[in-house]
Amino acid sequence: MLNKQYTNMLQEKDVIFEIFQYAAERAKVVGAENIYDFSLGNPSVPAPSIVNETIVQKVKTLDPLALHGYSPSFGIMETREKIAASLNKKYGSAYKAANIFMAIGAAGALAHALRAVTNPGDEIITFAPCFSEYKPYTAGAGLKLTIIPADIDTFQINFAAFEAQLNENVSAVLINSPNNPSGIVYSTETIEKLSSILTAKSKEFHHPIYLISDEPYRDIIFEGVDAPYIANYYKNTLTCYSFSKSISLPGERIGYLAVHPDCSDADKIIEICPQISRTIGQNGAASLMQRTVADVCGCTSDLSVYETNKKILFEALREYGYHCVEPGGTFYMFPRSLEPDSQAFCKKAMEKDLMLVPGDIFGCPGHFRIAYCVPTQRVEQALPVFKELAEEYR
Amino acid sequence: MLNKQYTNMLQEKDVIFEIFQYAAERAKVVGAENIYDFSLGNPSVPAPSIVNETIVQKVKTLDPLALHGYSPSFGIMETREKIAASLNKKYGSAYKAANIFMAIGAAGALAHALRAVTNPGDEIITFAPCFSEYKPYTAGAGLKLTIIPADIDTFQINFAAFEAQLNENVSAVLINSPNNPSGIVYSTETIEKLSSILTAKSKEFHHPIYLISDEPYRDIIFEGVDAPYIANYYKNTLTCYSFSKSISLPGERIGYLAVHPDCSDADKIIEICPQISRTIGQNGAASLMQRTVADVCGCTSDLSVYETNKKILFEALREYGYHCVEPGGTFYMFPRSLEPDSQAFCKKAMEKDLMLVPGDIFGCPGHFRIAYCVPTQRVEQALPVFKELAEEYR
Repeated sequence: MLNKQYTNMLQEKDVIFEIFQYAAERAKVVGAENIYDFSLGNPSVPAPSIVNETIVQKVKTLDPLALHGYSPSFGIMETREKIAASLNKKYGSAYKAANIFMAIGAAGALAHALRAVTNPGDEIITFAPCFSEYKPYTAGAGLKLTIIPADIDTFQINFAAFEAQLNENVSAVLINSPNNPSGIVYSTETIEKLSSILTAKSKEFHHPIYLISDEPYRDIIFEGVDAPYIANYYKNTLTCYSFSKSISLPGERIGYLAVHPDCSDADKIIEICPQISRTIGQNGAASLMQRTVADVCGCTSDLSVYETNKKILFEALREYGYHCVEPGGTFYMFPRSLEPDSQAFCKKAMEKDLMLVPGDIFGCPGHFRIAYCVPTQRVEQALPVFKELAEEYR
Repeated sequence: MLNKQYTNMLQEKDVIFEIFQYAAERAKVVGAENIYDFSLGNPSVPAPSIVNETIVQKVKTLDPLALHGYSPSFGIMETREKIAASLNKKYGSAYKAANIFMAIGAAGALAHALRAVTNPGDEIITFAPCFSEYKPYTAGAGLKLTIIPADIDTFQINFAAFEAQLNENVSAVLINSPNNPSGIVYSTETIEKLSSILTAKSKEFHHPIYLISDEPYRDIIFEGVDAPYIANYYKNTLTCYSFSKSISLPGERIGYLAVHPDCSDADKIIEICPQISRTIGQNGAASLMQRTVADVCGCTSDLSVYETNKKILFEALREYGYHCVEPGGTFYMFPRSLEPDSQAFCKKAMEKDLMLVPGDIFGCPGHFRIAYCVPTQRVEQALPVFKELAEEYR
């Protein structure tokens, strides 16, 4: 018999992908230039040229057996070393290669982190608005996911609701800053307060509460924004990173898990990661990509377009009467929908060929996500449509 | 608390990797030329030059946003189409692109196949000798793995033992031909008999018993060997393939799942694969590799060295008094150890710096695996050591 769990998942449609597909179909009818598609978080700036240069150089100079051969189950040592050094240089951390586990994107890193520090049946807490995939990620590890309602005025952490929910069955807290979908960056004050609560509660519950920090957008921070490196504030932090957004390689599925050197059971956590891989059929990121990021792990794409787009869009939306907390990074914005039912709102937008994602799937109805990882010209062209939509709600 | 299941797995050492690591350490002491390492199944012939040429061409000519961007959750359509066409040309099958799901190597394909057609608690049957990783692969999907004892005279299927074990809780049978560790290829007669039993029992139990066919060695077949394409003999077959061995890309983690077009619930099986990916953090194989194999999926490395090595080794071992069933493919051989305790035997070999893997981990004690994916010269240089070892047992 086919698997019931996965068959049931087919009922819960992938809302984002459906919108994206609808946009693609509509483009065939009305022309791509008449579709304003803000549905998908696919980077709009290319990988820095050094990425492709490095790939070509590796392919042309390395022994193909070494280049394409099995890599160690923890990842290629040189890559782990260079990532540790790059983190330490940037954030003043003290990672060693032994604290780094190479993974298949942030999704792969999370799959390992979530399984390493929990047992099936444990509870994980995260905060709305949150990435919609956290549900299948945690369900796959047999965990109970509790989503703390958003503080919709700031999209920082709703600490009152968090403290009310935190209990001894919680083995880890999962955060995502800079945040998808809100674009908000947790402030130093937020991280310090979170750290202090987790420290006190770990003591009270007689077990560490791990902090799993999902950071694919860490390198997309706008000017003047306070953006603490989270692991520096709480030692029991497992940082999950992806090169998808920083160097625009989402399809190459390359990322890593970095365990704070002073984390409780730091060595053991890394040590069990290859065991986790064996049970989920995920034996390492592509070796060519591992070797490539070793050489480029301090680089980023030219990410400035995202800030340009944010400024144009944020100012225009405010002028048109939308309410939005100003993003500090990423390429997302999460305004309030102009009617309480954000699905109805997004449907109205869709009738104007403006593709937006309702906040419901991020655990935060009454809002909608704009993924402005598109050429600036497309943002400018979409402004009249946002305006027209707002005018209909007057 | 750290995960108990994975922490416990640390106790069950990875025997192959430990031998490989010991060999690497010994090489530092006595010199690599004095170590005869037959422990690892890492291809010894490079990828065909067209692979690297294709990688460079893709990188130099494709739009980097398209090249490195997210690929569809089923895999890149062009790649799926070309794989289906390549299979149909070679085997007279009738796959459509819709029957192909791109995965992270055969391990990734198996992770999806095993989860798609089972529910936790179901039973899976496989046949000794079998790949040691089938235990964690099935455990990770919550399945009970039954290993049918080997027919040590032929390493074809022990049908009497199989039929005695086959019961209505068995949702799938997992086979691996050409086989790791024996090198044996299941004959047409074996596959026909297996198909006939599965057909009869599916009818009797009122549910399909799926056949999951793990075929990373499918393209390494020696001259004159009867090597049926398994899915042609049983429609409820899920074929798991990897490019690791055929074009020597084990580190790139690229493979696929092919579901027979007439398989029961064929469309649904593929449809739920991306749902499985979401729960195990395995969102697609690297896009550059997907695009590369699209162009080279009919090619192989020059695999002739494996047959050369097989001939030299097989004849010499027989002459020295070893008993071995002659391999029909792969780069493995699985002779009987010269004492019943194959671990003790392999330890004695190790004292001569000859690295062999005891059969116990393949569910078949009393045998040992030789991975002869090494330069022919190394095989020749090792012959006196195999001889000396045999003489000690006279």
